Order: sequence, then C-alpha cells, then structure tokens
Amino acid sequence: MASMYGNVLHLSIFGQSHSPAIGCSIDGLPAGIAVDEEKLQEFLNRRAPGRSDTSTTRREADAPEFIAGVTDGFTNGAPLAAIIRNTNTRSVDYNNLRRIPRPGHADLPAQIKYRGYQDVSGGGHFSGRLTAPLCIAGGIALQALEERGIRIAAHISSLGPDRIEDTPLDPLKPNNVQLDAIAANPLPCVSAAAAQRMHACIMDAKNELDSVGGIIECVAYDVPAGLGDPMFDGIENRIARIAFGIPAVKGVEFGAGMEAAHLRGSENNDPYRVGDDGAAPLSNHAGGILGGITTGAPIVWRMAVKPTPSIGRKQQSVDLTTDSNAELVVHGRHDPCIVPRAVPVAEAACALALLDAMLEDRMWDCEP
Amino acid sequence: MASMYGNVLHLSIFGQSHSPAIGCSIDGLPAGIAVDEEKLQEFLNRRAPGRSDTSTTRREADAPEFIAGVTDGFTNGAPLAAIIRNTNTRSVDYNNLRRIPRPGHADLPAQIKYRGYQDVSGGGHFSGRLTAPLCIAGGIALQALEERGIRIAAHISSLGPDRIEDTPLDPLKPNNVQLDAIAANPLPCVSAAAAQRMHACIMDAKNELDSVGGIIECVAYDVPAGLGDPMFDGIENRIARIAFGIPAVKGVEFGAGMEAAHLRGSENNDPYRVGDDGAAPLSNHAGGILGGITTGAPIVWRMAVKPTPSIGRKQQSVDLTTDSNAELVVHGRHDPCIVPRAVPVAEAACALALLDAMLEDRMWDCEP
Amino acid sequence: MASMYGNVLHLSIFGQSHSPAIGCSIDGLPAGIAVDEEKLQEFLNRRAPGRSDTSTTRREADAPEFIAGVTDGFTNGAPLAAIIRNTNTRSVDYNNLRRIPRPGHADLPAQIKYRGYQDVSGGGHFSGRLTAPLCIAGGIALQALEERGIRIAAHISSLGPDRIEDTPLDPLKPNNVQLDAIAANPLPCVSAAAAQRMHACIMDAKNELDSVGGIIECVAYDVPAGLGDPMFDGIENRIARIAFGIPAVKGVEFGAGMEAAHLRGSENNDPYRVGDDGAAPLSNHAGGILGGITTGAPIVWRMAVKPTPSIGRKQQSVDLTTDSNAELVVHGRHDPCIVPRAVPVAEAACALALLDAMLEDRMWDCEP
Amino acid sequence: MASMYGNVLHLSIFGQSHSPAIGCSIDGLPAGIAVDEEKLQEFLNRRAPGRSDTSTTRREADAPEFIAGVTDGFTNGAPLAAIIRNTNTRSVDYNNLRRIPRPGHADLPAQIKYRGYQDVSGGGHFSGRLTAPLCIAGGIALQALEERGIRIAAHISSLGPDRIEDTPLDPLKPNNVQLDAIAANPLPCVSAAAAQRMHACIMDAKNELDSVGGIIECVAYDVPAGLGDPMFDGIENRIARIAFGIPAVKGVEFGAGMEAAHLRGSENNDPYRVGDDGAAPLSNHAGGILGGITTGAPIVWRMAVKPTPSIGRKQQSVDLTTDSNAELVVHGRHDPCIVPRAVPVAEAACALALLDAMLEDRMWDCEP
Repeated sequence: MASMYGNVLHLSIFGQSHSPAIGCSIDGLPAGIAVDEEKLQEFLNRRAPGRSDTSTTRREADAPEFIAGVTDGFTNGAPLAAIIRNTNTRSVDYNNLRRIPRPGHADLPAQIKYRGYQDVSGGGHFSGRLTAPLCIAGGIALQALEERGIRIAAHISSLGPDRIEDTPLDPLKPNNVQLDAIAANPLPCVSAAAAQRMHACIMDAKNELDSVGGIIECVAYDVPAGLGDPMFDGIENRIARIAFGIPAVKGVEFGAGMEAAHLRGSENNDPYRVGDDGAAPLSNHAGGILGGITTGAPIVWRMAVKPTPSIGRKQQSVDLTTDSNAELVVHGRHDPCIVPRAVPVAEAACALALLDAMLEDRMWDCEP
Repeated sequence: MASMYGNVLHLSIFGQSHSPAIGCSIDGLPAGIAVDEEKLQEFLNRRAPGRSDTSTTRREADAPEFIAGVTDGFTNGAPLAAIIRNTNTRSVDYNNLRRIPRPGHADLPAQIKYRGYQDVSGGGHFSGRLTAPLCIAGGIALQALEERGIRIAAHISSLGPDRIEDTPLDPLKPNNVQLDAIAANPLPCVSAAAAQRMHACIMDAKNELDSVGGIIECVAYDVPAGLGDPMFDGIENRIARIAFGIPAVKGVEFGAGMEAAHLRGSENNDPYRVGDDGAAPLSNHAGGILGGITTGAPIVWRMAVKPTPSIGRKQQSVDLTTDSNAELVVHGRHDPCIVPRAVPVAEAACALALLDAMLEDRMWDCEP
Repeated sequence: MASMYGNVLHLSIFGQSHSPAIGCSIDGLPAGIAVDEEKLQEFLNRRAPGRSDTSTTRREADAPEFIAGVTDGFTNGAPLAAIIRNTNTRSVDYNNLRRIPRPGHADLPAQIKYRGYQDVSGGGHFSGRLTAPLCIAGGIALQALEERGIRIAAHISSLGPDRIEDTPLDPLKPNNVQLDAIAANPLPCVSAAAAQRMHACIMDAKNELDSVGGIIECVAYDVPAGLGDPMFDGIENRIARIAFGIPAVKGVEFGAGMEAAHLRGSENNDPYRVGDDGAAPLSNHAGGILGGITTGAPIVWRMAVKPTPSIGRKQQSVDLTTDSNAELVVHGRHDPCIVPRAVPVAEAACALALLDAMLEDRMWDCEP
Repeated sequence: MASMYGNVLHLSIFGQSHSPAIGCSIDGLPAGIAVDEEKLQEFLNRRAPGRSDTSTTRREADAPEFIAGVTDGFTNGAPLAAIIRNTNTRSVDYNNLRRIPRPGHADLPAQIKYRGYQDVSGGGHFSGRLTAPLCIAGGIALQALEERGIRIAAHISSLGPDRIEDTPLDPLKPNNVQLDAIAANPLPCVSAAAAQRMHACIMDAKNELDSVGGIIECVAYDVPAGLGDPMFDGIENRIARIAFGIPAVKGVEFGAGMEAAHLRGSENNDPYRVGDDGAAPLSNHAGGILGGITTGAPIVWRMAVKPTPSIGRKQQSVDLTTDSNAELVVHGRHDPCIVPRAVPVAEAACALALLDAMLEDRMWDCEP
C-alpha cells in the first residue's frame, strides 16, 4: 500500500522531490473540522527547509493549496486534497545517481524494485520533502485533536555521538513551562543549554562534511483512556507504522522502551492509586499504553533518526553500469542533521495515528 | 482492525485465554504451499508453555486442528483456519481482577474500552496465549519462505538488569554454527555461556517473586532485494506493526536501531562494494532496509520485551468498585520471563510480514 | 481478499463443503451486543438444508459453536469466532469432478486458479454451504440492528420461467401483515397464492431433473438517514459487494433498479413532502439511497439468483485430462431451487452491510 | 472509505464540482507502465461535457496535469497523482439548494450526513464531474491492459421509455466490425439505426424539460482465466463495487443477469466443448465468471443508469429551513441524458477492477 495510512481516515501521500508538486489526499475526515490555514502554515514552517543554519539551503515556501475538501474554513466531508508546488529544484545535481547509488539512501533498492523507472531527482518519492504533505495532514489532525483537549508535543531528547540529552517531558501531566521552552529555544529542546550544545554538535558535523542523528521524544497529553485495540492495531502498532514512514527512522519505542528489557517487573509495572479522576498510574513506564489500549496516562514514545546519509565526504560505492567499484561524493543541498526538522513530523504522525484510532473507536462524534 | 494483519495475506486471530478454543484464519495464501504438520508442531513446541523451569506451569498440548484450507498436506487456496482447544484452564484464579486491575496488564484499559463486557479470565484476548495461533500462521509462513531459500532466526540478544549479552547474529550472511548453537542451547542463545547466565538470572527473579525482560534479535537471511514499499509499508513498518502485536513488546528497531542516533553519517552509512552477486553493502547498519525496501543484505531487527507484569509480590492498585486504594497479589501461573518463549514468535511475525510483502510485490509466483 | 468483508467490522469466512468444519470470525464488533443463541438458531434453520421438499436431502444441524468473542450472552469485544462441524458429507460423489468440470459451477476456473490444489468435494469453498457462517455473522448483525429499531425482511419476489410474481414489500413503511405472511407461508412470500405457485414450479423442475432461479427482494426499514458514503462506499456498493458473495447471484439492483433506465426523470425522481418526521420522499424509486447515502426511506434492493447449476440431466463438458469432449451427469444431493434458502442469506448480507456502515459512520455508540 | 477503490491498487478520488480542482491519486501501480497522454486525452474527451447536443453546455477542457508518479512517459512506481482545474463554474446557480433539496439528488442525505458543512455548488463531491478523475485512472488502466492484450468495450444497450435496444456485443469473442461501429456512430451504439433513435429520444426529453436513462453493456475480451476470488472479491463483487460508484447507477448485472432468474438450469448452464485454446463454454450466460473467477470467456456486464435527476420542470420538495412544502425548478446546466457520457466511465471502471485483481492475483509481472 506504500504511501497510505489509516483504517478509517485514509491518508494518501504523493509527489517526488522534483515533481511538479507534492501533496496528499485524506478520505474519511468528518465534516465540520475547523482548518485554520494560518496556524497550519506556522506548523509547516517548523518543518520547512532553508530557515536555519542547521538545515539545507533549499528554500521552499511550503504553502499548501487546498484543492478539495475544505469549504469556508471547515472540512466539508468530501476527501481533502492539498498540494505544494515544487519550485526550488536543481535536478542537475542528481544525474549521476542512477548509476552510482549513494550509501544509506534508497537508490540501490529503488533501482532494483522499479527497474530503472524510478524518479531519481532529489531522491524522488523517498525524499524527506514528502514529510511536508504528511505535516499538512498531521497539522489538521493536531488542530482537530486540540479542539478536543488533546495536546501533542515533541522535542529532541538526545543527539549526536556525545549523546547530548535534553530534559525529558513530564510523562504524567502537561508542564507548560516545558512546552513553552521547546518553542522558545533555537532548537526544539526543553533545556536551553541542551539546545545550545546540540546546535554546536550539528555545526561541527557540518564543518567536517559529516552529519549526526538523534532521538525525538513525543508525548500526547489528555488522550482519553480506552483508545486502541489489542494485537495488531494497538496504539503502539499504529504509531510505529506511521513513524517508520518518516525517512531515516530506525527505531520506535514506548514508555520505558528498549530499556524495559532491563527492568524487573516490580520496577517496570506502574502501580495504580486513586487520583482526581479515578484510578491513575503513579509512574508511566508503559508510555500510556497497556494491551495496545490507552490507560489515560500520557502517551510517551520516541523515535531514533539516523544521521543524514547525504554527506560531503568521499564514499565507497559501485558503478552499476560497469559492475565495478566506484567512489562517490554527494553534491546537492543537504541537512547536516534532519532531527530538528523531524520534530514537528513526529507530532504530525502521532496526531494522525490518534485521530484515526478515535474515529475507528467511535470516540469522535460522541464526545462534543 | 485489532487482531488482523496483512495487505494481501489476511491473518485474523481469535480466542481468549480461557475460551473454548483459540485459533486463526488466513485468507490470501496461495494454493500449493506444503504444510508439514509435524515440523509445524516442533515449531509450536518452542513457544508452548510448561516445557521448562523458566516458563509457566500451565501445560497445553498446543496441537492445532486444521479445519479448513489444507487438503492432502497443501494449502488449497481457500482460507486456512486452525484452532487449538483450551484445556488446562483454571478460571477461578482471575475472578477478582475485574475489580482490582493488575499493574502492567490491560485490565484497566480493557475495563474502560469494553465497559465490563470483556472476558477477564487469564487475560482474555490479551493473553500471551494468543501468540500460539500467531505461531501457527507464522510457522506456515516460515515453511513457505524456507522453500524459497529464505531463513529466519532469532535469539535472546540481551536479558535482565545485568544486561547479559549474547553474541549477535552475523548481519551479513548466515552462519550455520551460530544457528545450530541457538537450537542446541537450553535457552535460544548463540553463546552457551550467555544462555547459562540468562537462565540463572530468570531463576533468581522467579525465586524473588519477580520477573525479567529482554531483547530479541531476529535476522532474515537471503531475502531478495527490492522487497517492500516507501513510506508506510516499508519492511520496517510491516515488521513493527506485527511485532508490536506481541504482548509486552515496547520497542522495535532495525540495524543500528536506536543507536543510529549516536553515530555520524560517515559511520552509519554502509558503503557498497562489488561482491559475488553484484553490489553489496560492506556493513549493515541499515538492517537490510533503505527507504523501506530491502537491499539484499539480511534484515536485522530487535524487539524489547518487558518483564512479565504478573509477579507474585504485593502490588499497589485500586478497587474500581469502591474507588479506593487497594493492594493486590497476582495468583495464577506465570512465566518469570517470557522472553525465551517469545523468540519463535518473533520469527513467526517476521515470516508473516515478509510473506505478505512478497505476495503484494508479486515476487511469489514469478520465482519458482 | 476473497472471503472477507467490511471496513470496520472484519468478517472472515472459512471452510469447505466437506472440510472438518466451516465457520467465521468477526473482528470489530463492539462489546456488549446481546447474542441470543436460540433466536440465532431459528434464523439459521431458515437457511439450513434438508428441511423441505424443495431443498437438498443433505441434512445438517447447522448448530454453531462459539469458540471466542462471546461471554455470558454478550459480545466481549474480542474477535468473535464460531464454527459448525460438517457431518453429513459424502465425498465419494465428487471424485470425478476434478477431471470433468460441471457447467455453471466454479470447477473449471478453480482448477486453473488453484492449479489442481483446490478441494473439489462438494464444491469446496465455493459451496452454498458457506452461506451458513455468513448467516451466523448476519444473524448477530440482525439482532444488533433490531435492538436499534432497524428491521430487515426479504421474500421471493419473482421465480421461474413463468415469472411468478409475489406482492412487493411496502417500499415506504413496514407492513406487519406482509411481514407476518412471509413467515407463515410455506415459501417466504407475501402472497399465499404466489407461494403455492412457486412451490409447484420448483417441484416441476425437480421432477424434470432441472432447476429454477428467482429474484429476492430485501427491504431494511427504519434505517437512519445520512448513512453511507459517496462513490465507492455508498450503501449500494456495500450491499452489492456482499450480495455478489452469495453463490449464484448474477444481478443486484436498488429501488427502481434496472427499470430506472426506462423511466423519465419526472417519473423516477421521488418528490419530497413534509411528513411526520420532516422531509420524506413520496415514492421510493431511489430504494432509500441517493448519492450512496440513505434518505431515511426504506432501503429496497433485489438480487437475481440463477437456477442451481447442479441438475440431474446429462450435460456437455470436457475431459481436462484428455482434452476431449465428454458428457457429464451430476450426482450428489442438490436443491432444485436455492432461492427459498437464499432469502435469509439476503437478510444476513444486508444486515452486515448496514452494521458495518453504521460503525464506520460512528452512528453506533452515539445513538443508545 | 468513500472515494477509494482497490485492494492492491489504491485509487483515491477527490474534488468537488466547483472546487479549485478535481483529481485522483493511485498508489500501487507497478513502475514501467507506459502512459500515452494523447491517447488518454482522446479517452477523456469521450466523457467530457459540452461536446454534443445531448450533453450539458458546461464546457471543460478536462486536460489532466500529472503532478506525480509519471516520469518520461512511464509510471515511476511512486503514487501517481493528476489534477484537472475546474474553470467553467457558475456557483450562483446552486445557492438555493441547501435550503430546498432537489428530488433524485444527494442534497437531502448530504445535508443530514454532513450537517450543513458539505459543498453544495454543482453537487459538490456527488457531481458526475468526479467521473473525470475516475477516467484518468481508468484510462491508464485501459492502456496497461491493452498492452497485455485485454480489450474493453462498452455501448448503450438500451435507452429510454421505449426501450430502444442496440445489438448486443458478441459475448464469446471480439468482433471488430461491432467495435468500430461503436466509435463511428454519433452515440456509442453498435447499430447506427439504434444510435439515431436514441438520439431522437434524448432530444425529445430535452425539449420537454425532462430526462431519460439507459443501460450500458460492457465487455472485456481476452481476460485470462483464473482471475478473481471466491465470495466477496469475485470479479462480480469488484466490478459492482466500482460501478455503483458512478453516480446514477441503480443496477449491475452479469451475463444473463436479472434474467437468469427466469431461466432453467438446463438453459442457463454454459456447456463446455474443446476449442482452440482448450475447454471453452459454448454460450456465456455466466458473463465469463463462475464462483467469482473468470472462465476465459469474455466478461459481460451491464449497469442501469437512471434518468438525470436535474430536470427543468417544476418539482415538489420541502423547505428545510421552515419545514414546509415547497416547489422547485432546477436551474443550471444539465445533461438530458448522461448515458452516452457514462459509456467510457463503465470501461474505466471495468479496467480498474480487472487491473487491481490481476495485480492481487500476481498475474502481472509473471506474464510479460
């Protein structure tokens, strides 16, 4: 199914890095959801390229045109479709890549799968640019969830070889000081000091023609309990399925995550106590999910983003036309670290997974 | 969709821990796949309870009855269905749990989602017992893949608070010495010493009425290049979606995984060189997948299994009928560590994900 | 996807005519739906074979065993699964059919598609016997809809070469006299005279070693307005997709149906007038559906059932092993007319389509 | 799921009659399918409005812009997306319709379902204009099938109250004289005389401010045997599901269709004889499909198109704002008969259903 997501909500993403446009369609959105285009643009700007010295110099307005599904600022019940024109493309940079695949990119598997018919310019459909339509859809989902009191926030929790750590988001209740700090700091971090160190780390890599990766933590607050399904459509499965759709994500974990493997049951279990709203866990190793279903505690998850595979250094590869070894220097414009720009994408992915689950669980029209 | 998996292959799993039977149906299996029931039983026995001092004392034969879809030892093209009768049930153990939810179990969210209608006995549909039908389906998928030369192996790569590490599986080519050792050791480990240490760790936890978790590494060798799709149906998305369907899994990662976040691009990129079969990566930080599509290198992934939430110690909980704090001791029969029994389940999940992708990518009937 | 149905409700049907059992699983049923097994058995008996001189002499109890998903008479939120053991099988009757395909049966296409691996006994997975699990699922859906005030009725509206016509069901409101008559007559007809003539027609065909077909009309009363979707998931698409899953159905139409082609717009349009419950159509050429969405008028649809292909007369066929012409006499036990037994199946199909649409449209939990 | 179609191929249609654009995305198309844009435009022109005195005077170029998925004239494996700008819109015509619903249109159910948020201009997403993107997708599918030797043709088989009948298409083998005649006649008919009579019938209706409907027959020649699935994904189910997505379709039938109900088994069964390519049916009452699977005979199906609901006469309706009876005259530009323009849409629908089934059945890459 490739570039489609959702059980009740059907998101379809299309476009290539250098095609006339990129965009998405969303089938199954209820009518009457307010779409604040200005607020959406602010959200998209958090992801857009060319806005900081840690990102690529390719500058795109990333202003979506809604061609269907929105009337007078509200979803009209028909499939929503929006496109973004690609303008600042320099396809000449990529001409050589069909012949000599870039390490860490999809060039080689795409060449095999599509038998040479794939669009190689700028990475084609594999480009990180395709996260822009994901953010259009996710931005609308975020607005819809926010109207119901659900708030999703993400930050860089760890970055680079020196494992620079940011303060974790509060796993039990929203902390406005933390959330405001993320928006205020030059990189999306709770701690200003961490943001500064991470910035330096990225600039070092850039200067050395290299790149760095990081871990993004995302938390959804005030998600109703009882959302999700057992087995293959738990909230974990749903978030993982969409999160691995973000290019460069190599791991997804919930609550204690991979570290849960190294706790004992007596440590990892979250004891319940009676709180203001009835039974509530005292800790949140579960990441707000047990048996695939939300507990009422915040959903806490993290995704690992690998270092940008496009680096300016000489790399070993193979010339597929001659079947001989070759060397390669990747030109074009690249992010030395895509983690900062992937932070809103994590929020978008989380929002889409939750909105789809709420629609499927009929939690939507019942709660005003 | 809950308990269903697959795009072309449609696996549906049903049953509760103490219902008359558990089972599965699989729609979309091509006709003519050999089903070796004896070999399947051997595979199921690796997961079955009551066979070792590290597992629950509930003993079930786990012998599937094929009620449809198999004729004379081959799939007949009609949906396959198989059931396993539940015999050794002791429902009395669970009577109290609707009232006082167990920490770390799905009791509380299930109570909210199903409004008290859920089957609580033995964990109901949330029970790890439901991995038995997953292994029926996965066992058949493993046989089908093996006929095409694809071999899947898993082992415990890390276990417990002391982080006992097993030797990693070779990420570049199958190593028969490793694979034989996993089958020979008392726990599924490459290293006999690691197996022994892990066994001791589990027995310690058991004696202290506690439990431990671990990480399972699974590798699929000789998967053809070009399998999988970009964005939301990459091999990573597919494996993650099914793996998070295994109870207690809290993290899934591929290749370098979460650690990719702490490598530089120049380290994480896998350079290509010309090998015996054309271009091949020299290392496998990608876990055999780039852009969601297989590179031809082995698929390497890991999943973190949390410590069994059922522990014999007194735990804090809440009495939902009186909305007051309560204490709880979980009775019933439990595994002090479910990681060993989850190893074949990881293989089953991986096989189902790959078989479904191969069918969708029309790689099946074309290769004899 | 073959034997699966539903967008939110996932029905999977399995079994062959002579496999150990036939059955179904249903994923996505809300918890708390009452399952009255006695009432369900009465419904299944309307379809069951061996109960009348117009049906096959194969007699099956058709008593479902619920193996999962039902606890204390209510759905428990986990996938529901039920099986019916096949007992009265005489596979010897079918041995010749792999070689010489029966005209009008799936023997030839199945042989090509499944390359000889298919189960031929009794028609295998293509047997009308597979409508029994469809009726288990549909019978539960009928009970669930009835609780919400939705009532579905079907009858034989036309039968045989002489086009014996029954009185149509009232297309605007339920008429209890009609509905009671259908249950009372020896064949499911509104008119006793029509029932008698149809019975004679079937017995004539039987005596002449031949078979007859007919048209079934099905009406769903008191379906809420606003149900269904435009384009490919309108109520028409949904009902047609499941109705064509009933063996021998060759046409499906709504409201004026095929005859709408021969009306003028001024005749076919249903004018609106203000009624007791607001705007309501004065006629129902639309069959209660406009733009795929219900209008509030009853849903009226019909399906054409071809004459049973199994007839006792000598027929022309081909010997596939010698690639030469051959003659064939179909032995085994057959219905001279399957239309009477297909009447409850039409109701079951309609109920499943509506329940799935109501769940997807979040009309379920919102309306008590 | 509304406006989506396909199991392996995922077609998503978006747009409203007067939105900035209409369009579609198609996920799952194999790479390397030739897209001849000129030929596609010729196909779209057969459906486009404003080209004959039997159609609406709204004139649209209906020239698709491919914004993704096509590179150098071939599909590139990424989702294909194409849009058509809406230009000739006159929204003022429709202002009154939110208040007084048009009989025979989706206005009333849409108002209920979407609670007033729907786009009413020109019928919004319910407009017949949405068949243009269906024809983009279907036109590409037709080209792809034609490359494999599959040829799909449709014509008006019956029209209007006088039941003007065209010569049926040969149900056993393609007849080029017939196919050429359809293209040559002023209306898509085999018989020139029928075309002339149908034209007169439409003009009569137009002059009397009324409209007429008709039946379209569509035949797919040289479809390989063994395509399709039992039960819910037979070729009948697949074609019916997409055909009922064409606005105004009220019935779909295959082979003998509704009339099969009035044949005896000895008449309706198609006897087999040995032909040039092995076993072949001598007649085609089955419409090329048995048990949901193709027999190798041509697929023959028909769909009934109701008379255009928009007529110039005064009609009875209801004023929803005052809950009182009202009268209505529909202004705007309308087709007195949409049947001629629906003929290519039937071909498009059939091609999409077959292409999706061939992909799912892995008949695609295996046959060169």
